[in-house]
Amino acid sequence: MVKPFWEKRRRGTVTTPIGFYASGMHCGIKKKKHKYDVSLIASGTPCVAAGTFTVNRVKAWPVLYSMKTIHAPKHRAILGSSGNANCMNGPNGKQAVEESVYELARQLNVTPEEILIAQTGLIGVPFPVTRFKRAIPKLVKRLSEDGGLRAAKGIMTTDLSVKQVALSFFLGDKKITIGAVAKGAGMVHPNMATMLCFITTDVAITKPLLRRAIRHATDDTFNQMAIDNDMSTNDMVLLLANGEAKNNPIQKIDKDYRMFREVLEEVCRIMAYEMVRDGEGVTHVCTLRVSGAKNPTEAEKAARQIANSMLFKTMLAGADPNWGRIAAAVGASGITLNPDHLNISFGSAAVVSHGRLRVLNLPKARRILQRKEYTIDVVIGKGRGRAQFVTSDLTTKYVLINSSYS
Amino acid sequence: MVKPFWEKRRRGTVTTPIGFYASGMHCGIKKKKHKYDVSLIASGTPCVAAGTFTVNRVKAWPVLYSMKTIHAPKHRAILGSSGNANCMNGPNGKQAVEESVYELARQLNVTPEEILIAQTGLIGVPFPVTRFKRAIPKLVKRLSEDGGLRAAKGIMTTDLSVKQVALSFFLGDKKITIGAVAKGAGMVHPNMATMLCFITTDVAITKPLLRRAIRHATDDTFNQMAIDNDMSTNDMVLLLANGEAKNNPIQKIDKDYRMFREVLEEVCRIMAYEMVRDGEGVTHVCTLRVSGAKNPTEAEKAARQIANSMLFKTMLAGADPNWGRIAAAVGASGITLNPDHLNISFGSAAVVSHGRLRVLNLPKARRILQRKEYTIDVVIGKGRGRAQFVTSDLTTKYVLINSSYS
Repeated sequence: MVKPFWEKRRRGTVTTPIGFYASGMHCGIKKKKHKYDVSLIASGTPCVAAGTFTVNRVKAWPVLYSMKTIHAPKHRAILGSSGNANCMNGPNGKQAVEESVYELARQLNVTPEEILIAQTGLIGVPFPVTRFKRAIPKLVKRLSEDGGLRAAKGIMTTDLSVKQVALSFFLGDKKITIGAVAKGAGMVHPNMATMLCFITTDVAITKPLLRRAIRHATDDTFNQMAIDNDMSTNDMVLLLANGEAKNNPIQKIDKDYRMFREVLEEVCRIMAYEMVRDGEGVTHVCTLRVSGAKNPTEAEKAARQIANSMLFKTMLAGADPNWGRIAAAVGASGITLNPDHLNISFGSAAVVSHGRLRVLNLPKARRILQRKEYTIDVVIGKGRGRAQFVTSDLTTKYVLINSSYS
Repeated sequence: MVKPFWEKRRRGTVTTPIGFYASGMHCGIKKKKHKYDVSLIASGTPCVAAGTFTVNRVKAWPVLYSMKTIHAPKHRAILGSSGNANCMNGPNGKQAVEESVYELARQLNVTPEEILIAQTGLIGVPFPVTRFKRAIPKLVKRLSEDGGLRAAKGIMTTDLSVKQVALSFFLGDKKITIGAVAKGAGMVHPNMATMLCFITTDVAITKPLLRRAIRHATDDTFNQMAIDNDMSTNDMVLLLANGEAKNNPIQKIDKDYRMFREVLEEVCRIMAYEMVRDGEGVTHVCTLRVSGAKNPTEAEKAARQIANSMLFKTMLAGADPNWGRIAAAVGASGITLNPDHLNISFGSAAVVSHGRLRVLNLPKARRILQRKEYTIDVVIGKGRGRAQFVTSDLTTKYVLINSSYS
């Protein structure tokens, strides 16, 4: 394996890039006092911002607000909260967003358009706006260079582990850092799966290129993970770039842009992988690679069908190399296919070669599926289209978590 | 409720229509000697036939054979088997189909084109053609007017209950009967879910109209049930009509045709419902009705998204009226939607009215979801498009059945 040109920062988080400050605390949206439920990430200087938002037709109030303000020329802060999705709760929800953003803007001495907001939690519940607003001055006061971990905690719901990372690389002699915190797509009890990711970077870049980079990075990472194929009303990825690394600003699609994009994609990939690994009831994480499809679209179609198949996912839970379920899912995806050209490998165990079972490799395949993490390769044998998905098993624990209410 | 114009026949099955004979037995495809694994249904006189076949790109050998012979002008018999899907097992599988169909044609003194064949079971396993062929003379010899139940048993896999039905109605003074046997879409251990349904009728009808009727009937029934959203390599619905009822032959789309189609659809609906009820680990059966969509296509899109959502299905398992999961699934389907016009009812409990939660109805909704069978209504509030799906809950038992191998 080639050594990457970026470096993983120890305890890296959103405050690792220069000039970012963060805080997080409990304000009372969640009942348990030891659980954080609000986060703030802010930059000392103005940033350009970009984001991707859920395409669900039902959108939470914070999504509607941030989709509007993301077009502003500059931004200063991301306000996050957990425990209440602020969705389908009527005009109260809209007002909650507006009042709290206004309060934060006043505290930071910026305009409300410079604030982005993301929330996650229960749908259809009135938002406790008073508690939330009361927390804002405290969040601002507590902003600090080591507040990244607390900001990560403030957006967690059923996540078992904190998700944060920072990677650094050089553009010329300037060290660029990209940091992130995220909450998982494991379902938010009791309503739904929300995926949030806040990314900060000190790179100097134009807004259009930042937007281009984040779209590309999310397409290949967050949009290609499959836990339960449900799309949340609150999903959001937000990215702030403040230029404090003082590099030559990235203004066109050149080598610098490509390096930045590659590291950004790696940050997103790490966060997406952590989310799948931390998904509810997950005991196996599978990187599913489809290649040899007629084109990339067909590869993605096949990968999505396999990754979201309940038969496939229960098979992973049982560490059982039932390759027939993979073949059937590929067929069900409707892509161009000759079953006689199909190859399926579990890790290094080639179980199907040119459409025929290699029985002797089944025991090895079974051993590989017993590992916590592995790769499954499906080769279509039609062309050069490739796609990759990160997916997990479907366990009885997932069902138990998601069918109980109390 | 209006009394239907058809009558349900006691112990009705494929041999209830005049002139049909059936048999079923153990031949050795399955290991356990008390398990039937072959079925034969034959008519004393030539039939017109129609069928619908899996659209999976990977198709089992019997599917490829029957898709070809279904175009023949007349048919005499349907040969079925279980325990081996006869799929992705190389030229041996093709030969197995050809040899056994040839043998059956010889025994019945008809041409091989007059035979239809359907199989279900494990993928990728060599087919035990000798045992299968040896059973054929016995199956022919045992054909009888009360062999319907044995034919139903010969195609069962993980089904817990036998699925058969017959409905009768009058066209003029002639009594018409439609009978059916089926095997469920609950997954075939250990490889996949296959749905088979063999239908017989003594109506006199032209082949093009028979084809039209079966397509219409399957679209509204088998294609609208959702257990695990996986499509088998072997799915098949076959229909034989021998004209023995001596009615005025149905030759155009008139009142007689519509009555026949309606009863045929009812037969398919009963079989589909039985399949869902008998799905692996199923404890609740939900009839999901979406109405008020912009058009029928959008209604179906929303219904499919809800019915196949793992979050929705685990919610049913827990008898928990988490309406937010339904709203999110409707949104994720991408249909035209104003969340403020959405209505959701669990049975008679209206939980969401015009996008707002009616908290007081939640306890009633919870009681309704504890029943074994109920209806959930989702009203979009955009137009007159309707769709209906039969779906089931996702239980820990489903996961256990489908993740274990031994």
